[in-house]
Amino acid sequence: MIDTAEIQSIEAVLAGDVRAIARAISKVEDASPGASRLMKAVFPNTGKATVIGITGSPGAGKTTLVDKLAVYYRKQGERVGIIAVDPSSPFSGGAILGDRIRMQTLGLDPGVFIRSMATRGKLGGLARATVDAVAILDAAGYSKVIVETVGVGQDEVEIVKTADVSVVVLVPGMGDDIQAIKAGIMEIGDVFVINKADRDGVLRTEKELEALLSLAMRSDFWMPPIVKTVATENTGIEALAAAIQSYKEYLENNEASQQRREEIARWRILELLSERLLAQTLSGHSASQLLERLSVEVASKYRDPYSAVDEIMASVRGAEE
Amino acid sequence: MIDTAEIQSIEAVLAGDVRAIARAISKVEDASPGASRLMKAVFPNTGKATVIGITGSPGAGKTTLVDKLAVYYRKQGERVGIIAVDPSSPFSGGAILGDRIRMQTLGLDPGVFIRSMATRGKLGGLARATVDAVAILDAAGYSKVIVETVGVGQDEVEIVKTADVSVVVLVPGMGDDIQAIKAGIMEIGDVFVINKADRDGVLRTEKELEALLSLAMRSDFWMPPIVKTVATENTGIEALAAAIQSYKEYLENNEASQQRREEIARWRILELLSERLLAQTLSGHSASQLLERLSVEVASKYRDPYSAVDEIMASVRGAEE
Repeated sequence: MIDTAEIQSIEAVLAGDVRAIARAISKVEDASPGASRLMKAVFPNTGKATVIGITGSPGAGKTTLVDKLAVYYRKQGERVGIIAVDPSSPFSGGAILGDRIRMQTLGLDPGVFIRSMATRGKLGGLARATVDAVAILDAAGYSKVIVETVGVGQDEVEIVKTADVSVVVLVPGMGDDIQAIKAGIMEIGDVFVINKADRDGVLRTEKELEALLSLAMRSDFWMPPIVKTVATENTGIEALAAAIQSYKEYLENNEASQQRREEIARWRILELLSERLLAQTLSGHSASQLLERLSVEVASKYRDPYSAVDEIMASVRGAEE
Repeated sequence: MIDTAEIQSIEAVLAGDVRAIARAISKVEDASPGASRLMKAVFPNTGKATVIGITGSPGAGKTTLVDKLAVYYRKQGERVGIIAVDPSSPFSGGAILGDRIRMQTLGLDPGVFIRSMATRGKLGGLARATVDAVAILDAAGYSKVIVETVGVGQDEVEIVKTADVSVVVLVPGMGDDIQAIKAGIMEIGDVFVINKADRDGVLRTEKELEALLSLAMRSDFWMPPIVKTVATENTGIEALAAAIQSYKEYLENNEASQQRREEIARWRILELLSERLLAQTLSGHSASQLLERLSVEVASKYRDPYSAVDEIMASVRGAEE
């Protein structure tokens, strides 16, 4: 059942109330009971924002780049939401990076909403929660939503791929990195940035990148542009915004983008379904006790994880009968 | 039911037959029906190997380091299994890095088993499959199993944490990287390597690293050693092997390690359970048709992902009645 307080908080989100938005994001992050009702109300109001995913190696200067891009959009009169996704251990839990230095420059601007997200060791997935948070910011009227990931792993790739436009940030002189970059994130870039472009080696990096891009054949036939920036000096930010906009416009008239949207939708459904099934199976005191006992047994090698799962599945069936 | 062919292939794995091992890993990677029976048979034979996780930024020279470490172990008469985990998109699927250059040097040695793993867009998780592959190599008699991850994201962190000893590889002169490194992987290193230690800035990186490590308080009170290497010149490899061994021995008499094993066991059970529940829910032709229809509807914004999941859950309940 949806109650009056819930309706009010959903209305506050849609009206752009910052505290309501923050609480709503916490709700999807914690996969709390109201999250499903909230997201059902939010969803019809989404689709207006341009969602920009930004990824790249540690040290590529992503945070500074995101900040300058946000300032640029603010000058155009746009409201900007920023979500920074921090990889962290599922065992220790919690975000380690905070909202950092950027709070000093952007944090006082009411037209900018900044949030760090990290897994907290719950059953819910970080990627799913991030995509929900993007939808909340979209529905709340932020016309640009930037998702920055500090990692280059599977989750981060998933998150960035759900953006409308994915930006991959490189730096000059990566040399032997090019293979690794290629493997991890090359395929997801709609726009490439060579940041710190005042450093040595920028031409070589650009040539290598062009060579790699010329080999790839994208299903949407887009040729990703390469933009050179020096984020710390605010150089190239306008060109980056233009490149982002041009892919966004390209997408709107492209059949491949419908297919991509379906793949993203399928992935979102599976993520949510998986969470829901796990929560349902492990709800109740006896199920969580069983999980703890089995964890101890597997750790002590009295039992293998596969037969532990058999036992949980059997106990669920038993409880249903 | 387990049949004769299956028993034979499990026996072949335990006897160290390379082709049987390769097939077994494919089985857990695909989460195929026999995987559960296979892993139940494998599990009691595990626990003999030292499992070493190696991670770090792209370009840190992890692959070369792993290769040299493998050669070192071979000279000690040990059998070495290497699993390289590649982050790749769940949308495009497939490993992009192959087994690369290392095949030329190590690939002809029958005492070394090398495998790349990447998600293939299936329902099964990469982290779960990797941990299963490690167990297979352990049971097959590889006394050292090295898991190398090329990313620094959530999945990679999970994978490395399940190792007995986690090695984080840095390079000198990371400067502004130190924050990002700190966030992503600092907390998981049992041993730190500064590779390419013939480069400028090695002392500064070492000092920064020491300062960071002195701030952290580990639950097991271990003080992670810092080893300097030049992997391309085979320098420091013996010291690295000694540092790995010393943590492995330290663990054996430590209470905190039992707690860690239980956390890993719990995580493995949850990963497997999640896969099993998803596979069960989506088995059958009508469920997969429903998923496809809902994906199209969500992509077109006729429907939100949350109510799509409600519909799948309702259809499952309907089918059970």
